[in-house]
Amino acid sequence: MSNKNLENMIVKMVKEAKAASSSMALVKTSVKNAVLRKMAKVLVANKDYLIRENKKDLKAGVAQGLSNALIDRLTLNGKRIKGMAQCLLDTVAIKDPIGEVMKTIKRPNGLLIKKVRTPIGVVGIIYESRPNVTSDCVGLGLKSGNAVILKGGKEAFYSNKAIYSILRKALRGSKIPVGAIQFVSSTDRAAVNILLQQDEYVDLIVPRGGEGLIRFVVDNTRIPVVKHYKGICHTYVAKDADLNMAHAICFNAKVQRPGVCNAMETMLVHKVCAARFLPRMIGALQEAGVEVRGCPETRSIVKRGVKAATLKDWGEEYLDKILSVKVVNNLDEAIDHINTFGSRHSDAIITRNKHEADRFFKSVDSACLYVNASTRFTDGFEFGFGAEVGISTDKLHARGPMALEGLTTYKYEIHGEGQIRQ
Amino acid sequence: MSNKNLENMIVKMVKEAKAASSSMALVKTSVKNAVLRKMAKVLVANKDYLIRENKKDLKAGVAQGLSNALIDRLTLNGKRIKGMAQCLLDTVAIKDPIGEVMKTIKRPNGLLIKKVRTPIGVVGIIYESRPNVTSDCVGLGLKSGNAVILKGGKEAFYSNKAIYSILRKALRGSKIPVGAIQFVSSTDRAAVNILLQQDEYVDLIVPRGGEGLIRFVVDNTRIPVVKHYKGICHTYVAKDADLNMAHAICFNAKVQRPGVCNAMETMLVHKVCAARFLPRMIGALQEAGVEVRGCPETRSIVKRGVKAATLKDWGEEYLDKILSVKVVNNLDEAIDHINTFGSRHSDAIITRNKHEADRFFKSVDSACLYVNASTRFTDGFEFGFGAEVGISTDKLHARGPMALEGLTTYKYEIHGEGQIRQ
Repeated sequence: MSNKNLENMIVKMVKEAKAASSSMALVKTSVKNAVLRKMAKVLVANKDYLIRENKKDLKAGVAQGLSNALIDRLTLNGKRIKGMAQCLLDTVAIKDPIGEVMKTIKRPNGLLIKKVRTPIGVVGIIYESRPNVTSDCVGLGLKSGNAVILKGGKEAFYSNKAIYSILRKALRGSKIPVGAIQFVSSTDRAAVNILLQQDEYVDLIVPRGGEGLIRFVVDNTRIPVVKHYKGICHTYVAKDADLNMAHAICFNAKVQRPGVCNAMETMLVHKVCAARFLPRMIGALQEAGVEVRGCPETRSIVKRGVKAATLKDWGEEYLDKILSVKVVNNLDEAIDHINTFGSRHSDAIITRNKHEADRFFKSVDSACLYVNASTRFTDGFEFGFGAEVGISTDKLHARGPMALEGLTTYKYEIHGEGQIRQ
Repeated sequence: MSNKNLENMIVKMVKEAKAASSSMALVKTSVKNAVLRKMAKVLVANKDYLIRENKKDLKAGVAQGLSNALIDRLTLNGKRIKGMAQCLLDTVAIKDPIGEVMKTIKRPNGLLIKKVRTPIGVVGIIYESRPNVTSDCVGLGLKSGNAVILKGGKEAFYSNKAIYSILRKALRGSKIPVGAIQFVSSTDRAAVNILLQQDEYVDLIVPRGGEGLIRFVVDNTRIPVVKHYKGICHTYVAKDADLNMAHAICFNAKVQRPGVCNAMETMLVHKVCAARFLPRMIGALQEAGVEVRGCPETRSIVKRGVKAATLKDWGEEYLDKILSVKVVNNLDEAIDHINTFGSRHSDAIITRNKHEADRFFKSVDSACLYVNASTRFTDGFEFGFGAEVGISTDKLHARGPMALEGLTTYKYEIHGEGQIRQ
């Protein structure tokens, strides 16, 4: 497709989405839920078609030499399609955020001011690999009364397009205009550039993917972006930690799924626990195939197989079976390390000292802070949000797992009886 | 000052602010309130000094030929200084938003998730003319636990600097670090550019001023911006309006203070009321010195002195005694006109029909929607927020009058007893 045709296609798409979004604000919860249930049903009913289209992507992926991990993320099968359907049903079960009166103010002059939750409008989602993002985002977008524009990665093009076409068909005959779901049917990178220029029609962009994609989006648009650069998550084993608990949590945070953003990348240990805690902990991690990179203090305690950590290690998102370890003198040093090298995503303290946990909560500048639990819980589903559009490491608008509420804004509705300003 | 020196100064300033902001999150409400009370006291106690410094600005302003309206906005006198002090005391009276538990989620696995309101961090405010913005923003910034960086307009330089130096002195001996208030002591436009590059240290920029300033800020920073381009406010006189009430409200919305963003710029009138309503209404407005520009229908009803409105008029923020008037066929046409030409700021419907008011509330995409009241009430003080940092016409983060809550974000504090992810 020529760039001019691509531009015409995308401009038509965003205008349709904008037009659809105006009527979306008026759609009743029962109508939205009925559509989501129908979508869940037709996804499962069209399982064979989806798997057939997915095979095209898998074949291309193998030919291109995608890693096994990526091929796995890309694969659709009966179980995963059921999972996508279940996610839509979970979204049905969650309370409709639209219309919620968040606050009521009665002024001395009699004005009644209601702060009411409303949809944002048109939300563009730019994502890579996993095809379930397509149906998750359609579900969250519709339930929160928004029109969504989907731009998936080229490696999942046929899968995403098939999911989209089935979901869009499910809108026919409902009160939700079909324009409320849009899919950029092009693998051309230029399509992203054109979409990012549509600030007149698109209210929010959520990029999901690697840091490169996200920086590209931020640098090339005036549309507000809610983003997540990376997850450099820490666990701090404090001086009053239950060391058995610390062992189990750190092991889980590093090993259970090392390739995701909420996995631990750096473990901080108070000096008074280090000699008791580190040998067994590092031994267990090494046995599970984790490469450990330690500070000098760590290496003086555990001599076998611990590489020297460099300054670069403290700011690295490994997304792999690698862990940096540092012994610290006190809570303040741990907090300072996290605020300096962390990514404002998820950080944990293991302690029985409530006072220290409170200081950690107040002083670490991250979206999700844990006491005595694994950072791996940072996830819309684990938080009870049904699904997630993404995890925000921004501080404005939405922070942490972003789901239905993150796709809403508010307006003030002011009821008067003729009041004028003096 | 050379650009290099200016850069050094600003980088030092933002680093100090960042360092101060970490301890700000720990400051108790009582400490913050005591400081605000002291600030209110020292402002009034230093009245003569403030007025003396303000005279320097006024002298320069007159020499430069500033309009009377601008000179008036710039002027400090005893009453206005008392007003600034009162605004700080009003901020004392408002509940501290920090630490508020916005939501509690108990998960089946026993995890207790608390969504807790926190400061944003470092907030930069770039503003023009009125010196009271300096103390209003310091008050709101400190109460919400943020460090603030102030960059005022050059026309109010001496006034702003004097207010700042008095407020900053009031921090000495308190638990709030003096670094929490920063003032860019330069009238060089390059200072703004340098400040806008500090995305590593500054979490939010709020520009207050003309559309040119705001576009410049948005186009030159990666820091999130909460902004307000313009206020093209509408009042729609619906077919079931109480026409006497409509008359009073429209007159107020246009005439009481035409130069502000929440004044009415376009009046829409349902065709069935037009012949009864327009002659008296337009007569009264013209008598008050308002120039009326009407659609053909309006001009066929009121023949005297009504100019023809052009397409450009519907999208114009006059900020002056000028009003565009359009007769519409129905509610949908009014909604469509507002969503097409408005600025998402404040719009009103005058009606006794609850159903139409509801449709207006749901379908008009603006921050503040009124039924039977003047749009002039869109204001932090009138909403009971004590003061305002600005009025946002954005849809993300903060919308409408932005005060203490608009200067906060949240984090999730998750309490576990050793939970790990399965």
